[in-house]
Amino acid sequence: CYEVPGTRDYSPKQMAIRERVFNAIITCFKRHGAEVIDTPVFELKETLTGKYGEDSKLIYDLKDQGGELLSLRYDLTVPFARYLAMNKITNIKRYHIAKVYRRDNPAMTRGRYREFYQCDFDIAGQFDPMIPDAECLKIVHEILSDLQLGDFLIKVNDRRILDGMFAVCGVPDSKFRTICSSVDKLDKMPWEEVRSEMVGEKGLSPEAADHIGEYVQLHGGLDLIEQLLQDPKLSQNKLAKEGLGDMKLLFEYLTLFGITGKISFDLSLARGLDYYTGVIFEAVLLQPENDHVEEPVSVGSVAGGGRYDGLVGMFDPKGRKVPCVGVSIGIERIFSILEQRVEASEEKIRTTETQVLVASAQKKLLEERLKLISELWNAGIKAEVLYKKNPKLLNQLQYCEDTGIPLVAIVGEQELKDGVVKLRVVATREEVNVRRESLVEEIRMRTSRP
Amino acid sequence: CYEVPGTRDYSPKQMAIRERVFNAIITCFKRHGAEVIDTPVFELKETLTGKYGEDSKLIYDLKDQGGELLSLRYDLTVPFARYLAMNKITNIKRYHIAKVYRRDNPAMTRGRYREFYQCDFDIAGQFDPMIPDAECLKIVHEILSDLQLGDFLIKVNDRRILDGMFAVCGVPDSKFRTICSSVDKLDKMPWEEVRSEMVGEKGLSPEAADHIGEYVQLHGGLDLIEQLLQDPKLSQNKLAKEGLGDMKLLFEYLTLFGITGKISFDLSLARGLDYYTGVIFEAVLLQPENDHVEEPVSVGSVAGGGRYDGLVGMFDPKGRKVPCVGVSIGIERIFSILEQRVEASEEKIRTTETQVLVASAQKKLLEERLKLISELWNAGIKAEVLYKKNPKLLNQLQYCEDTGIPLVAIVGEQELKDGVVKLRVVATREEVNVRRESLVEEIRMRTSRP
Repeated sequence: CYEVPGTRDYSPKQMAIRERVFNAIITCFKRHGAEVIDTPVFELKETLTGKYGEDSKLIYDLKDQGGELLSLRYDLTVPFARYLAMNKITNIKRYHIAKVYRRDNPAMTRGRYREFYQCDFDIAGQFDPMIPDAECLKIVHEILSDLQLGDFLIKVNDRRILDGMFAVCGVPDSKFRTICSSVDKLDKMPWEEVRSEMVGEKGLSPEAADHIGEYVQLHGGLDLIEQLLQDPKLSQNKLAKEGLGDMKLLFEYLTLFGITGKISFDLSLARGLDYYTGVIFEAVLLQPENDHVEEPVSVGSVAGGGRYDGLVGMFDPKGRKVPCVGVSIGIERIFSILEQRVEASEEKIRTTETQVLVASAQKKLLEERLKLISELWNAGIKAEVLYKKNPKLLNQLQYCEDTGIPLVAIVGEQELKDGVVKLRVVATREEVNVRRESLVEEIRMRTSRP
Repeated sequence: CYEVPGTRDYSPKQMAIRERVFNAIITCFKRHGAEVIDTPVFELKETLTGKYGEDSKLIYDLKDQGGELLSLRYDLTVPFARYLAMNKITNIKRYHIAKVYRRDNPAMTRGRYREFYQCDFDIAGQFDPMIPDAECLKIVHEILSDLQLGDFLIKVNDRRILDGMFAVCGVPDSKFRTICSSVDKLDKMPWEEVRSEMVGEKGLSPEAADHIGEYVQLHGGLDLIEQLLQDPKLSQNKLAKEGLGDMKLLFEYLTLFGITGKISFDLSLARGLDYYTGVIFEAVLLQPENDHVEEPVSVGSVAGGGRYDGLVGMFDPKGRKVPCVGVSIGIERIFSILEQRVEASEEKIRTTETQVLVASAQKKLLEERLKLISELWNAGIKAEVLYKKNPKLLNQLQYCEDTGIPLVAIVGEQELKDGVVKLRVVATREEVNVRRESLVEEIRMRTSRP
């Protein structure tokens, strides 16, 4: 077998579904005024070093064949930060849709791959607090609503609140990152397991772990923020206080956007990547839309992101910072859900846009078919012809049925003499003779969308 | 520096130009009824082995980090053949636009990169001779005409004619491939150098080389085909005769398509890849369109392709063949030409589609701006807002000038009281008060394309 584990080909039908998802996402990104950029699939290995914490082991390296050491990009965020620093850009709102690579254990039934698309929207620049951050959440809300994937929830937290929480719980500074990684596993593991990892593997005191345990079960909205701002310990911690203040501001903006109904301030949300510095968030689908599907689709995170104010500075020779916040939509799970839905609905998806098949009723008319289709192509009509010298009319009509081509332009000896073409509507079997000079206009009229 | 040699980032402006090129190409591929597929960026190393002849040394391998040995794709043709065999597809017309990778010496000024796009259209299936082949040439003709790149020429030859020619010139069977590689260099080297490579490095007899030298200077149209069909030696060679017969048929179809004016049957065209079995072709730009450009753009091959009837069978366990013919458009040179043309013309290219900026004339109106923009986004209007609590009106208007946003929706205290929004046309400075409930309709009307 020639298949690479953890990857897949997209068939024409799958591509049609994928295009729908991309269109919804790109339409939203453009609605918010984003420009688009592209970067190479590989980066210098050193560009990716030290950006992903414990996940760095999943980076794909290229073989050393002479020249620079290269790695495949792990996400689109680090290449974006590298791009900003290299081009001294301090202010941009851009999207980028491209494949990223992770040497993960493929669990493809759960929609996880080693090669997968990310659709990223980021805002870079020195701005007033939480306005761009709120827009990122609005974007996630718009896209997940547009795609009609069923109910969803966007969890929000802040690295500063987490770090403040770790501090007041008695976690030593040196253990912040690794304890943060443990908290990040709470969406897949019960608290008891996470606690024993903290205490057993990572050497945290049981008291500190239990203290964390109390906080990470909290989730809510503005009321919880207010409550924590009064928390005797957290409110004494500078970082936590800053984070909570910004969280309050964020919720005020989200209220203006009318989307707080699907937002949850959740102290258990951690996100593993090293580069986040402020707000972090993650969107999860709450239940699969599988009324018509036999096998339930497993659900999970479909979008995530946050603020990373220090990353660009890591690539600048003078360390100049450019504050950034952004969101990444993961389309693989979304695509799996929509694909299963299409399968179940027996919806017929066309994989071409062909308007007309140029056919002949008699033999020896290949030349006439080629002349006619050339006229149609030159006029911008989407047209096909069977690659046979003498195809049977029935086979030509069957091809239209199979592929959804709505019209057939039939040339025969009589039609050629009369200067007409017989135009057949596949769905109704209606046939009309159309003068050859009017054919293009007639096809356009009959295939224009209402 | 963090740049990977031989690659480049695309800025928003470059992306806008790239999108134009892609649109022209995709529109053409769809006009010819093609479906679209996608495959992973890497393949098993063995999938690529033995497909590219002397160019195999340019393949990028991934590091062995456990698991399978992988290589980055070198073109889109081999992955396509692998896809057909794996899925037992015997009949498809598809396009595929994606990046491919070659460890070449980057000569970026000449538009050559180690990572570059190919835009491939291929027809697979058992069909009557030369009909799909002719369509591939029609497609190249349409795309190069649409893009208005100046004059171009499509050179055509056939591997069977080359092999027949080698045979009648006295080249031993075992040297066919390597002598073919030498002939392939004729577009970059004079005949004398190619001849000395054949005789000196590759051990061909001087007589055989001189004999080849006579053939490879020939180029023409139907007349040349007829002449060679009468050639006392070639006409006795089975392969050459087959190739010349098909070439004649091809030119008949190209005459029906009305495109022979830009097609040249050229015996010096070889193309290096191992997998071609029949017709081969290559399109070259004849002169750069650089009337307005100071630095002349170097020109060269912008499209190539041919027939490869044996490739799919190499991936099928039982060796079942699927005849294929296809064309690959290389956009990097095309893109360089168009980019220089845009630079020279001082054409202003918008990199966003934003219809309106939501602005305020006074301070303390951030909340009102966010409420209004949320209404616009929800109605599908492309809108932006400056991420400042109290931006100056002048700065907001300047932002529109800089980015080409045509309208400004201004909220002020008076407007809020009156239930209106002040809509300003950036180009004319005209201002009208629009009732809030009519704003969406008014923006749509004023920004719809004529």
